[in-house]
Amino acid sequence: MMIKSCDRLVMIILILILFSAANLFEISLASAFDQNKNFQWEVDYIFRSPDCVENVVMGINGQFPGPTIRAKAGDTITVNLTNNLRTEGVVIHWHGIKQFGTPWADGTASISQCAINAGEYYVYTFKVDKAGTYFYHGHFGMHRSAGLYGSLIVDVADGLKEPFHYDGEFNLLLSDWWHQNVHEQAVALESNPFRWIGEPQSILINGRGQYNCSLAAQFNNTSGACSIGKDAQCAPDVLKVLPNKTYRLRIASATSLSSLNLAIGNHKMTLVEADGNYIEPVTVDNLDIYSGESYSVLFTTDQDPTKNYWISASVRGRLPKTPPGLTILNYQPNSPSSLPTSPPPIPPAWNDFNASKSFSNKILALQGSLVPRPPPRYNRRIFLLNTQNKINGIIKWSLNNISLVLPPTPYLGALKYGLDGKAFDKQNPPENFPRDYDIMKPPVNPNSSYGNGVYRFEFRSTVDVILQNANILAEGQSDVHPWHLHGHDFWILGYGEGKFTEERDEKNLNLKNPPLRNTVVIFPYGWTAIRFIANNPGAWAFHCHIEPHLHMGMGVVFVEGINQIKKMNIPDTALTCGLTGKLLVHNRGRG
Amino acid sequence: MMIKSCDRLVMIILILILFSAANLFEISLASAFDQNKNFQWEVDYIFRSPDCVENVVMGINGQFPGPTIRAKAGDTITVNLTNNLRTEGVVIHWHGIKQFGTPWADGTASISQCAINAGEYYVYTFKVDKAGTYFYHGHFGMHRSAGLYGSLIVDVADGLKEPFHYDGEFNLLLSDWWHQNVHEQAVALESNPFRWIGEPQSILINGRGQYNCSLAAQFNNTSGACSIGKDAQCAPDVLKVLPNKTYRLRIASATSLSSLNLAIGNHKMTLVEADGNYIEPVTVDNLDIYSGESYSVLFTTDQDPTKNYWISASVRGRLPKTPPGLTILNYQPNSPSSLPTSPPPIPPAWNDFNASKSFSNKILALQGSLVPRPPPRYNRRIFLLNTQNKINGIIKWSLNNISLVLPPTPYLGALKYGLDGKAFDKQNPPENFPRDYDIMKPPVNPNSSYGNGVYRFEFRSTVDVILQNANILAEGQSDVHPWHLHGHDFWILGYGEGKFTEERDEKNLNLKNPPLRNTVVIFPYGWTAIRFIANNPGAWAFHCHIEPHLHMGMGVVFVEGINQIKKMNIPDTALTCGLTGKLLVHNRGRG
Repeated sequence: MMIKSCDRLVMIILILILFSAANLFEISLASAFDQNKNFQWEVDYIFRSPDCVENVVMGINGQFPGPTIRAKAGDTITVNLTNNLRTEGVVIHWHGIKQFGTPWADGTASISQCAINAGEYYVYTFKVDKAGTYFYHGHFGMHRSAGLYGSLIVDVADGLKEPFHYDGEFNLLLSDWWHQNVHEQAVALESNPFRWIGEPQSILINGRGQYNCSLAAQFNNTSGACSIGKDAQCAPDVLKVLPNKTYRLRIASATSLSSLNLAIGNHKMTLVEADGNYIEPVTVDNLDIYSGESYSVLFTTDQDPTKNYWISASVRGRLPKTPPGLTILNYQPNSPSSLPTSPPPIPPAWNDFNASKSFSNKILALQGSLVPRPPPRYNRRIFLLNTQNKINGIIKWSLNNISLVLPPTPYLGALKYGLDGKAFDKQNPPENFPRDYDIMKPPVNPNSSYGNGVYRFEFRSTVDVILQNANILAEGQSDVHPWHLHGHDFWILGYGEGKFTEERDEKNLNLKNPPLRNTVVIFPYGWTAIRFIANNPGAWAFHCHIEPHLHMGMGVVFVEGINQIKKMNIPDTALTCGLTGKLLVHNRGRG
Repeated sequence: MMIKSCDRLVMIILILILFSAANLFEISLASAFDQNKNFQWEVDYIFRSPDCVENVVMGINGQFPGPTIRAKAGDTITVNLTNNLRTEGVVIHWHGIKQFGTPWADGTASISQCAINAGEYYVYTFKVDKAGTYFYHGHFGMHRSAGLYGSLIVDVADGLKEPFHYDGEFNLLLSDWWHQNVHEQAVALESNPFRWIGEPQSILINGRGQYNCSLAAQFNNTSGACSIGKDAQCAPDVLKVLPNKTYRLRIASATSLSSLNLAIGNHKMTLVEADGNYIEPVTVDNLDIYSGESYSVLFTTDQDPTKNYWISASVRGRLPKTPPGLTILNYQPNSPSSLPTSPPPIPPAWNDFNASKSFSNKILALQGSLVPRPPPRYNRRIFLLNTQNKINGIIKWSLNNISLVLPPTPYLGALKYGLDGKAFDKQNPPENFPRDYDIMKPPVNPNSSYGNGVYRFEFRSTVDVILQNANILAEGQSDVHPWHLHGHDFWILGYGEGKFTEERDEKNLNLKNPPLRNTVVIFPYGWTAIRFIANNPGAWAFHCHIEPHLHMGMGVVFVEGINQIKKMNIPDTALTCGLTGKLLVHNRGRG
C-alpha cells in the first residue's frame, strides 16, 4: 500500500483544524487558494463514430465525451452553457457535487431548473467542496443515453494531500451505447405493447468502443479483428505507463443501463475512493461499478514490462449481449499497438450476485476521521418498494405504487412560490407499502398510478431510506438498480436479502464504518438501507440511475429546508417555464 | 364547367352587401352562423409505417397525419395544444390563415411565440376568415419533415355558396418522407463538409406511400409489387367515386423539399381555387404544386366506369430519385383493389421548366369581384436576391447576403417590449443587392453573414417584393424555391427570366387579374414579383417553404403596425422564453 502514514497524519491534523468550527456537511471549504474556473460550453449534436459506426451524439464544444473539468476542492466552477440544439431543451447535472446553497445549479430539469431552451443559455455556478472523482451528464429526457456526459475531477486543495501516494493517474469514463437514437428509444419505452431498448451495442471507455469487431479477436471467435487507424474516433485510449510505478485510475460509470466489472489483466487494484469519499483500502482482482458510481484504484506496474495488458469493462447483472469494452495498458517503451499476449480478464459470471454482494460489502469508510460517521439514530425512516407495474397497459416502474412523472414546473421554483398542489401533487407519496406484499412474486395487482408528490424532510433531520426490491412483472426475475441521491452523500448501512424486517435486520446495520456515497445498488430480491442528513435546502431527485428506468418512473423527489427555499434568490433563468414562468409574467401586470 | 352562373351571381351580390362597409383584408366576416370549434390536441412521437417501413413520426392524438380540421368561414378555432414530447418544444402554424388581430396564434417559433416546452400547452385561438383549402404544420426546427402536419378545410359560411358546383369532394395532403430522423438531417445540414439530406425515400398521399415496392409494378420493372393489407398504415387512401359526377379534389402540399406534379389518369382537372382564393377556371391534364401551395380542382367521372384510374404525385424540378406517390380513383362498384389497366400518368420531364412556367402563368384571379385586385402603385419595393453561400465553411442560403438565424426571443414579444437591438439585430437588412451581381454565375465572393434584423413596413402601405433567383455555389445550377408569406395573401404580379430590370419588366407586371396567394415559386435564374398590403400588425415570416432551405437561413421577417403591436395583449404563454421571459421575471422584483 502506498499510503504514507506521516503525510496522512499531517493531513488529518490540518483538516481537523480547518473543520474545528465548521459542520463538514454545510460549510464548504474556502481557502486562499480557491479559484474561479470559467467555461464556455455549447451543446450540439455532432456526427461521431464512438464504436466505429457513425451516429449522431450529443457533444460539448464539438467534443465527445464532453471536456474534462479539473479543479481543486474549494474552487468555484462557472459553466456558461449555451444550448445549440435546434428544438430540444437541455440541462447538465454535476453528479456527486452537493450544491450547498446553489440547488438551482444541480442541473435536473423539472426539479432544480427549467430546461434551457434551444438557443438560450444558463450559467451554472457552484463550488466543488470535496476532492474526488465525479462526472457530469444531461438530466433531461434520455440525454445521458444520447452521449451528454464528461468527467469532473476535483483534486485536494493546495497544501493538502490525498491519504495515499501515486506517481501518475488516468481517468476512465465508462458508458454504454445504442445505435438507435434516443427519441426512438423513448417512444419504444412508452409503447403498448412495450418495446424494451435491448442491450447496448457497445461498451465505451472514454467514449470509445468497437462494434462488430474486437481488439482481442485472436482470443475469441465471435467477431473479426478491428482494423482501426490510431486517429480513428473509435481507437482505444491507450494508458501509457512506466514499469514499477503506482498509478491512480479514476473510474466513473455514466452508463445508461449496464452494470460493469472492470479489471486490468494480471494486475491487482487497491480501491481507495468511492463517489468522492475515501474508503478503507481493499485490494481486488476486479471491481463492480454501477451506473452513477465512481472509484479510484491504485495499481502498481509490477508485471512483465515487455508486455502490454488488457483493461476490460464487462457487463454484469444482466445476460450480457454486449462484448466487453477494452483498452490497453501499455508499458513503455513497448509499442501501444502491440496487443497483450493473454486473453482479456474473465469477469465473474454475469449472474453471480454473491460475488457482487461480496464486493459491495468490502467497501467501507476509511478508518480515522477523514470520513464522518453517521448519527446513531434516525429521525424518520421511509421504505421505498420498487415494483414494475402497468398504467393503462404501459409498463412503468413505481415506488410504493407511484410512478414518477416529472411536472413542467420545476419543484424548486414551485416551492419558493408556494405552488404546492398546483405545480405538483399536494399529497405526499406513501412512506411504506403493505406489510403483506410478497416481494418474491409478481405484483398481485399490477396496476399503478402516476404521481409527482414530494417527500418533505425536517431541516437537518436524519433520514433513513430502506430501498426494497421485488419481483418484476414477469415471474422469477428481479433486477439490479443503482440508486443515486442528488444534493447529498449518504451512508450505506447495509444490504440484505428478502424483505427488510426491523426485528431481524436492524441490529445488523453498520453504524461503525459505513461508506459514504451518492449511489448505491439494490440487489435482486434484496434491500439496501441508507442514512443521510437532510441539511441541504432544495429539491433533490433520488432515483434509479438506469436511464430507461427513470424514464419509466423510477424515482422520487426529496424536499428539505422549505423555509430556506422560500428565501432563496433563484436565478430568473431557472424559472421561466411552467407555472413559475406564467406566474411571473402575470405579476408583471401588477408591477 | 360546373360553375352555375346564377348561383354565382347571387353569391356575388351577397358578398357585396356584406363587404360594403368593410375592408376585405382587415375585418373578418362574422355572421349569426359563426361557431367556436374546440380541439384538444396532444403532440407526441409515435411508431408508424407511412411508407411500409416503420419509423418514428410526429403524431397528434396518436394520428398521422394529424386530425383534419373542418370549419366554416367566420368560425373561431381553438386548439389547446399539449406538448407530450419529452425534450423538444413544439408549435403549429396554420398555413394560409392570416391571423388578423391574433398574430401570437401564427405558430412560428422565434417569431410569433415561444415554442411550447415539453409537458406544457398553448391555446391557439383564431378566426378562419375565408373559405378554402389550407393545412397546418410544425414550424420549429424540422418538425414538418418529422411528420407534424394535417389538413384545415374551411367551407363557405352558411347561406353562401362556392362559385362552382360539385357532387362530392376529396382531400389529398401531399408530403415527402425520409427514413433518416430529422435530428440527424438537421446535423447533416449544418456540417462541414456539408451533407445534403438527399431526395426523399417516398412521396406520401394523406400520409401513405410505398417504399421499395410499387402499386403499379406491372407497368415498371424498377421495384416489386406491393403486398399490403388494406388496413396497413401504408395502404393507399382509395377515392371512391360514382360515374358521371363532378368531384372537388382539394390538394395541399406539405412537402419538405419536393415540388410535385399531380395527375388523374384519363381525367382532366379544372382548377378553381389556389391557396384559399378563387381562380379563373382553367382545365389541365396535370398540375404543378409546390410546397406550401394548395389547389382545388374539379373533375368529372366521365371515363369508362368499369375501370379504376391512377392518381399520381411525381417529383418535379429536381432530378427525381423518388417514385411517384400513387393512389387509386375507384369507380363504384368496381373493387378498390382492382388496379388500373393502364400505366400511371406520365408527368412532364422533371426539368421541363417551360411546362412549369406555362402552368404557373395560367393561374389568374377569378373574373368578377370575388377576388380583390391589387393597388395600382406600391409604396415600397424591396429586392431579395437569394444566393447559396458559405459561413465559416458551412453552406447557407442568404437573402441579400444575410442568412437568417432565428433568435431565442420571439420577435412579436420583443417588439412589444422595445427589445429591438437586444433580442434581434437593430439594423434593418439590406433592401437590394449590388447592381453588377451576375445571377448566372456562382457568387464571386461566396461568404455571407448571419443576421436576424427585420424589414419594417409602414402600416397599410403597399409593398412589392422582387424575389431574384441566382446560380448556386456550384456552376450551372439554380434551384426552384417556393416562397410563403405568413399573415397575408399577396398578388403575383409576374414571373420573369434573368435579372429583374424595371425598364424592361415593369410594364409586363400583371395588375389586372393577378392571382392572390400565400405561396409563390421562383424559377431557376428567374424572378418573381409580388405585391401585398402591410395591413396586419405583427411579425411575419417570409421564407422558402423547403424546410432544409429555411433551416439553412432562407427567410426574412416582415414587421408592420409596430404601434399596434406595442398595445397588443399577447398571451403570457407566448412570452415565457428568451429576453421577454427574463425581462418579465426581472420585473417581478419591481412589482
